[in-house]
Amino acid sequence: MVWIDLVAVLALLQMIFFAVLVALARTRYQVHAPATTGHPQFERLYRVQMNTLELIVVLLPGLYLASHYWSPQPVAWGGAIYLVGRMVYWKSYAKDPASRSLGYGLSVFPVLAMLGAALLGIVLKVVV
Amino acid sequence: MVWIDLVAVLALLQMIFFAVLVALARTRYQVHAPATTGHPQFERLYRVQMNTLELIVVLLPGLYLASHYWSPQPVAWGGAIYLVGRMVYWKSYAKDPASRSLGYGLSVFPVLAMLGAALLGIVLKVVV
Amino acid sequence: MVWIDLVAVLALLQMIFFAVLVALARTRYQVHAPATTGHPQFERLYRVQMNTLELIVVLLPGLYLASHYWSPQPVAWGGAIYLVGRMVYWKSYAKDPASRSLGYGLSVFPVLAMLGAALLGIVLKVVV
Repeated sequence: MVWIDLVAVLALLQMIFFAVLVALARTRYQVHAPATTGHPQFERLYRVQMNTLELIVVLLPGLYLASHYWSPQPVAWGGAIYLVGRMVYWKSYAKDPASRSLGYGLSVFPVLAMLGAALLGIVLKVVV
Repeated sequence: MVWIDLVAVLALLQMIFFAVLVALARTRYQVHAPATTGHPQFERLYRVQMNTLELIVVLLPGLYLASHYWSPQPVAWGGAIYLVGRMVYWKSYAKDPASRSLGYGLSVFPVLAMLGAALLGIVLKVVV
Repeated sequence: MVWIDLVAVLALLQMIFFAVLVALARTRYQVHAPATTGHPQFERLYRVQMNTLELIVVLLPGLYLASHYWSPQPVAWGGAIYLVGRMVYWKSYAKDPASRSLGYGLSVFPVLAMLGAALLGIVLKVVV
């Protein structure tokens, strides 16, 4: 379970890193709080942060639920793919929003797999 | 506890479903990333997703904390009401934002009840 | 661990309180859903709520992970600082967004400390 905890902490640190990028972009592109629009590059980074927030809210319970019903090791590997996928997502979104699909899919797929695995584990436990 | 896990997974899948609706609306109403405004119907679905994100962040700890201090069965039923309430919220918000109160209340009330139950359980444990 | 649960519930209730302020500001400043812009004071309160959402998603796992690897008592105190910091953040942001740094730092610092403590605990467990 220590590997699951490690993935969880790294995913949170990665999201904080994206939040720091948004804070820096706020100064750089002169987007004054409370505005969240005003410069395309700021808006891209802000969307990376927000989308990561949306996804991490699923990832964290997904990690613990999937590893509760199945072996933690493949779940932790799924988490590693998520972490790489989010880096690709950030890099491609910042460059060109239209190119964000690969990084998006790479980070969403393992999260969906964890949720599916958890659901299957729950159903098997209820039925059997 | 398996029923609590089931509610948690279903609530996450429901939120992912709302996110898919937003992604489809993005294409349909030509709202290009990183914009989150531009067409009223897109904005409604986006708000449904965001509001669900705000609420699920309370629901998930609420589920586990309330069922830790009390019996899990009524908590799981509260979760079922939440799931129905969110569907009503989505349908009514998409039709007319002004009509969203019923679905909103129906999904917020069980979450507040879980949090209240958890708080009562904690206070009783500290005091007694 | 009951103190960790208490901090978690109080942090969630505090975020709900900010959400209620946003709902009231919506009526007061005539910002009709699904809009999230239109009046500076509404936008400030909305940003307080959103920023708290972003941070609570880190705080909650931070609380439980840090208190799993270390003693829960200092972690709970860190949570208390977070709660005070968020109140300062709300008050200063609503008055003047430029003055939000103190409250921001006061609430972000304990969260980062929890995450750092968790990471250290995990690394020690993997290495040793």
